[in-house]
Amino acid sequence: MTKISITGLFFLACSSLGFAQQNLGKISVKQESLEKQFDANMSAKRVGEHIKLLSSVPHHVGSVGSKKIISDVEKIFKENGWETKIETYQVLFPSPQVRQLEMSGLTNFKAVLKEIPLKEDATSGQADQLPPYNAWSADGDVRGQLVFVNYGLPEDYIELEKQGIDVKGKIVIAKYGRSWRGIKPKVAQEHGAIGCLIYSDPIDDGYVAGDVYPKGAFKNEYMVQRGSIMDMVVYPGDPSTPFKGSKGNVERIKHEDAENLLKIPVLPISYHDAAPLLKDLAGAVVPKSWAGALPFTYHFGPSVSTVHLNLKFDWKITDAQNVIATIKGSEFPDQWVIRGNHHDAWVNGANDPISGLAAELEEAISIGQLLKTGWKPKRTLVYCAWDAEEPGLIGSTEWVEDHQNELKQKAVAYINSDGNARGFLEAQGSHAFIPLMSDVAKSVVDPQTKVSVFERARAHQAISAANPKAKLDALKQQTIRLGAMGSGSDYSSFIQHIGIPSLNISFGGEDEGGEYHSIFDSYDHYARFKDPDFVYGVTLAQTAGRAALRLADADVLPFDFTSLHHTIKGYVGELQELVEQQRDKAKAQNELIATKAYLLAADPREKNEVPKIEKQVPYLDFSPLLNALNALEESAKLIESKKVTLQGAALQGLNVKLYQAEQQMLNVKGLPRRPWYKHTLYAPGFYTGYGVKTVPGVREAIEQKQFDEAQEQIHQVAQSIKQLSNYLNN
Amino acid sequence: MTKISITGLFFLACSSLGFAQQNLGKISVKQESLEKQFDANMSAKRVGEHIKLLSSVPHHVGSVGSKKIISDVEKIFKENGWETKIETYQVLFPSPQVRQLEMSGLTNFKAVLKEIPLKEDATSGQADQLPPYNAWSADGDVRGQLVFVNYGLPEDYIELEKQGIDVKGKIVIAKYGRSWRGIKPKVAQEHGAIGCLIYSDPIDDGYVAGDVYPKGAFKNEYMVQRGSIMDMVVYPGDPSTPFKGSKGNVERIKHEDAENLLKIPVLPISYHDAAPLLKDLAGAVVPKSWAGALPFTYHFGPSVSTVHLNLKFDWKITDAQNVIATIKGSEFPDQWVIRGNHHDAWVNGANDPISGLAAELEEAISIGQLLKTGWKPKRTLVYCAWDAEEPGLIGSTEWVEDHQNELKQKAVAYINSDGNARGFLEAQGSHAFIPLMSDVAKSVVDPQTKVSVFERARAHQAISAANPKAKLDALKQQTIRLGAMGSGSDYSSFIQHIGIPSLNISFGGEDEGGEYHSIFDSYDHYARFKDPDFVYGVTLAQTAGRAALRLADADVLPFDFTSLHHTIKGYVGELQELVEQQRDKAKAQNELIATKAYLLAADPREKNEVPKIEKQVPYLDFSPLLNALNALEESAKLIESKKVTLQGAALQGLNVKLYQAEQQMLNVKGLPRRPWYKHTLYAPGFYTGYGVKTVPGVREAIEQKQFDEAQEQIHQVAQSIKQLSNYLNN
Repeated sequence: MTKISITGLFFLACSSLGFAQQNLGKISVKQESLEKQFDANMSAKRVGEHIKLLSSVPHHVGSVGSKKIISDVEKIFKENGWETKIETYQVLFPSPQVRQLEMSGLTNFKAVLKEIPLKEDATSGQADQLPPYNAWSADGDVRGQLVFVNYGLPEDYIELEKQGIDVKGKIVIAKYGRSWRGIKPKVAQEHGAIGCLIYSDPIDDGYVAGDVYPKGAFKNEYMVQRGSIMDMVVYPGDPSTPFKGSKGNVERIKHEDAENLLKIPVLPISYHDAAPLLKDLAGAVVPKSWAGALPFTYHFGPSVSTVHLNLKFDWKITDAQNVIATIKGSEFPDQWVIRGNHHDAWVNGANDPISGLAAELEEAISIGQLLKTGWKPKRTLVYCAWDAEEPGLIGSTEWVEDHQNELKQKAVAYINSDGNARGFLEAQGSHAFIPLMSDVAKSVVDPQTKVSVFERARAHQAISAANPKAKLDALKQQTIRLGAMGSGSDYSSFIQHIGIPSLNISFGGEDEGGEYHSIFDSYDHYARFKDPDFVYGVTLAQTAGRAALRLADADVLPFDFTSLHHTIKGYVGELQELVEQQRDKAKAQNELIATKAYLLAADPREKNEVPKIEKQVPYLDFSPLLNALNALEESAKLIESKKVTLQGAALQGLNVKLYQAEQQMLNVKGLPRRPWYKHTLYAPGFYTGYGVKTVPGVREAIEQKQFDEAQEQIHQVAQSIKQLSNYLNN
Repeated sequence: MTKISITGLFFLACSSLGFAQQNLGKISVKQESLEKQFDANMSAKRVGEHIKLLSSVPHHVGSVGSKKIISDVEKIFKENGWETKIETYQVLFPSPQVRQLEMSGLTNFKAVLKEIPLKEDATSGQADQLPPYNAWSADGDVRGQLVFVNYGLPEDYIELEKQGIDVKGKIVIAKYGRSWRGIKPKVAQEHGAIGCLIYSDPIDDGYVAGDVYPKGAFKNEYMVQRGSIMDMVVYPGDPSTPFKGSKGNVERIKHEDAENLLKIPVLPISYHDAAPLLKDLAGAVVPKSWAGALPFTYHFGPSVSTVHLNLKFDWKITDAQNVIATIKGSEFPDQWVIRGNHHDAWVNGANDPISGLAAELEEAISIGQLLKTGWKPKRTLVYCAWDAEEPGLIGSTEWVEDHQNELKQKAVAYINSDGNARGFLEAQGSHAFIPLMSDVAKSVVDPQTKVSVFERARAHQAISAANPKAKLDALKQQTIRLGAMGSGSDYSSFIQHIGIPSLNISFGGEDEGGEYHSIFDSYDHYARFKDPDFVYGVTLAQTAGRAALRLADADVLPFDFTSLHHTIKGYVGELQELVEQQRDKAKAQNELIATKAYLLAADPREKNEVPKIEKQVPYLDFSPLLNALNALEESAKLIESKKVTLQGAALQGLNVKLYQAEQQMLNVKGLPRRPWYKHTLYAPGFYTGYGVKTVPGVREAIEQKQFDEAQEQIHQVAQSIKQLSNYLNN
């Protein structure tokens, strides 16, 4: 499911501080030799074969194809010495029964609503494909005028208000992009819209981005992005069973009552289907930043003609089947290093998720070879292939909710992957893992340039940096940039619901395409545009696999809380700046209103609503956070000294303490209005979706100008940090 | 001819310094009453009638229509009490004989090369229209592959080089926009191209900007922007007679030898004609910032098919006729306040230039009424309507070159206008005029909001400012933002060649359109989209007219050298920062090369040339400039004190000194490689065209990394400032 540009979400973990444990992740000669073997066992050819095999049929959750893929995956694990089991959950999964979109009046048009198979793409014409739809759309048969809402974000509705346009009782049409798709209908619904269309404008992943499929990799006029619009920022997983695993006689709420499901019908369409609707829009011309690349002038609307949108779904319970493969730890069987990638796809899913799954399988195969040499991991390896990730991270979430108590005891870490392609290392994760992941990245060779993937990513960051100073700073980096975790893949419940230290790893940036969630996310497309030699499948396996093996075999678990402290300190600085910016902005805005500048600068021939006077931004007390950080700094130092001195049982006690430490950052009450999200540092943004908001309780309250709540949340977060600090001190 | 976005070119003349002579421009009761009468005599209805009359036929230089317009203009002056004469120059003016553009090979296409008249636009189907062409294109019959060069700017060729694409022996196609049009073929020629096409992409002034004509104001698929590509940044005016007036037996150089004419054929085309050519381009996909809005993927090229471009021109000598209308000054007949606007148009030119000319005529009519009341200006008013501005500011330049000695003695100021429309005051000029123009702007009422045009422009600047601080600063401004003068209209020779203090005044920002230099710059278009009530014609007349009247009747001429000093000081700060930026950039770039970051970050499957190591940027000695500025500051103060104390003949002597002072800023040698441009503070950019470069000798040398020349130019400019300072001291 992952599809998010993470540029700009990174917090730069500066090397200049000199982390206390520069040598924390330095590995033994034994480990080095193990990893050499680990690498040697891998085959890019086999990665390609597995991508082909596992994307050979459409395999969404509950489908015939899915059964085949699950059996193929289980077989590969088994053949390589892993114990496997299938853990099944009974989950809600709506599939479309009626999909109808028409316009009538001045424009009379019936939308095609289907993608056209191509002879150049072998699997594109297969039976059993799910047609283009947005899972979790409400049933609905609505008629109304259409309004164009740009990307459908909150700020777009501010522009609409300026123009005097109300979407109440209307159907909106939004471009895909700039946010996770589910945000668009959510914001539309909040503003009173009765339906929502989402289309792929050629300006984003169509002919403006590059040649269209099959000539090039990008969206042709009929391609459509499917996808879930479950409001996962409230909670992911089966909407009918929040907080609980969906199995047996679990109590269920009605889908109509689920807080994370919308009430309006929502449909994704191609630009072929969007063009006649957009052309019909009247009203003022949109600002240049709103215009797409279709060859006509975009207007706000409302439309002259009437849109009729009719959607009906089969709300049935389906089996979601996770494949769980295990190799028991020789010394600490009750300490689990968990690795996962989903197996379900919207259609064939060669890139999303099979490219990541093939890498995970390559690790499993190589580990199988290592077992044959007599090696055993000290800790238990748990390799998972999740089902039903696409509709809402369901397979992994139900599993985590089901096993949460055991996981809080045993899970050392969760290492996730999803789509993967040619390019640069990208990683997000718990910031205590910065030294671990930096050392891993320095030890994996980039297949194209033969330098380490660390060095290549750093070069890319330096070249891409905005200004000379940032370029030079990037060149000096000795640690990787570990992004903070938002949502969009199966790590979410591990890190955000129960505080398991997590990582998410992929390569990319040199691939291209508009195939995401379409019938053309196929082997043919992947092999032309994503990773033609499948070598980055091996590179991902080497990277994620090293992280798993080092965690499994470590004498002292590589958690570094000085890195975490440094990272949180950076976040707090950002928050302080954010308040100041808001203060300056409100002050300037109020002055512009008071001096009538808005009125005077407005074109009297156009509609221009003058903004309202804003309340002054209060000064917040950040001292509780800063004091808690001071304490954490000391505690982190203490832990570092203990790592060096402790031995035997005391050291084993320390290890448990280390891997359970992240749970101290949870707040049992969860975030305001979304109690499922318990981590005080990382959450997907309420209005961004996949995109992370760090220190979300505080940051989002400031962004929404709820300053009382922001102050209250500062105390909550400070409390979590103190809790961690005390925990480390004991 | 003016068509340049001046946003960002302004130097902010901060109010915070508190100019010494806040009351310099405060006017007497007598003057106030005169201006009241001056305003009352004006009529928006008559402005509309004159726009209609003077755009009723195509009237490019030398045409039948032009004779009619000249006679109409002269008649209006005469009827209102002005003495008139026609000053005629014999100037070179090429008109097209052959225009042929085809593509053959995979694509077979013959370009239409004409605009399609519309029934909604009454004058669009008239005879005698010049077809779409770029005046001063070379004759040429060339065949070659086509390469897309984005906007055709120097930085675009850096991208091409990175891609390994050479335009040598090829024909290039560039989008209109981002620079003056003449820069595109000049840079193409420098890179070895054999021909150049320039087209209007719908992303700039077509359907992305708004609905196309006749539904809306913007370019439909057949519309073409005509225009001169004379390299005016070398010298404007008749290319065959640089430095001299083109009359009688003036010695002429052959047009093939003129330094300001290109050697390759150049043709402007519509997006209808460009689309098939662009579609044929092979090679890599262009970056997103290069792509236009035609509905296909843009590639760099070269083209698969061959382009054939055949152009031939009639290089004949034509009469350019300036209308010069005069009212002799009652006290100082040999002190001239000159006002001008051109009368020639590429076709009908309702906006460019007639909207400005109609305002000038409205001033002349009102002044005619004032004369009837017995009032006479103390100084001589010289109102001009220039011919042949469109092909290269020819009418005004020849007149200035012809009369230069007399002008240096007598010209108090030159006040220019050109196109005009609904919106906000925009002014450029000599910075000693900041207080004058601020006071004028505060005394003219905006017709839509009834506040002063100063207050409205300030509100607009505050609303448009980038950040809260800039917004608050803008709100506090007590003086107008007077932009520095580049080129693009008839003030160029006055200010830049002979140092006559100048102003250029217009209103705009609420008009819209893609009609510029097309057959649709018509009365019908103007009356719908530019200034439907013609009230801004009156507002321009009130603004420019007040400047003229105050200069004509002032006891002490309103020149303020503290404003000038402050402005130059700002420029010097910018230059120092520019050198530092270049130093940081070169340092970072060299470090990226040394660490192989470029190589490592590059996609091995794409062509990516690594940049070359740059020389270190030396430290320049800015002290001569800073010391000269210190001296100027003192001299400016001295002058301010003299203004208050001097009387009678001494005061009259001071006045002459004041208006001739700007000539001290000239350097007789002119700018490097373009000796015609003698002003050391203002010139059009060698690679921007209309856009100004302030302190051009120094700034352009730094930009081009000619640091020895930059140091040499610092001394030259310091010398000019010292010269001014000494002049003011005596």
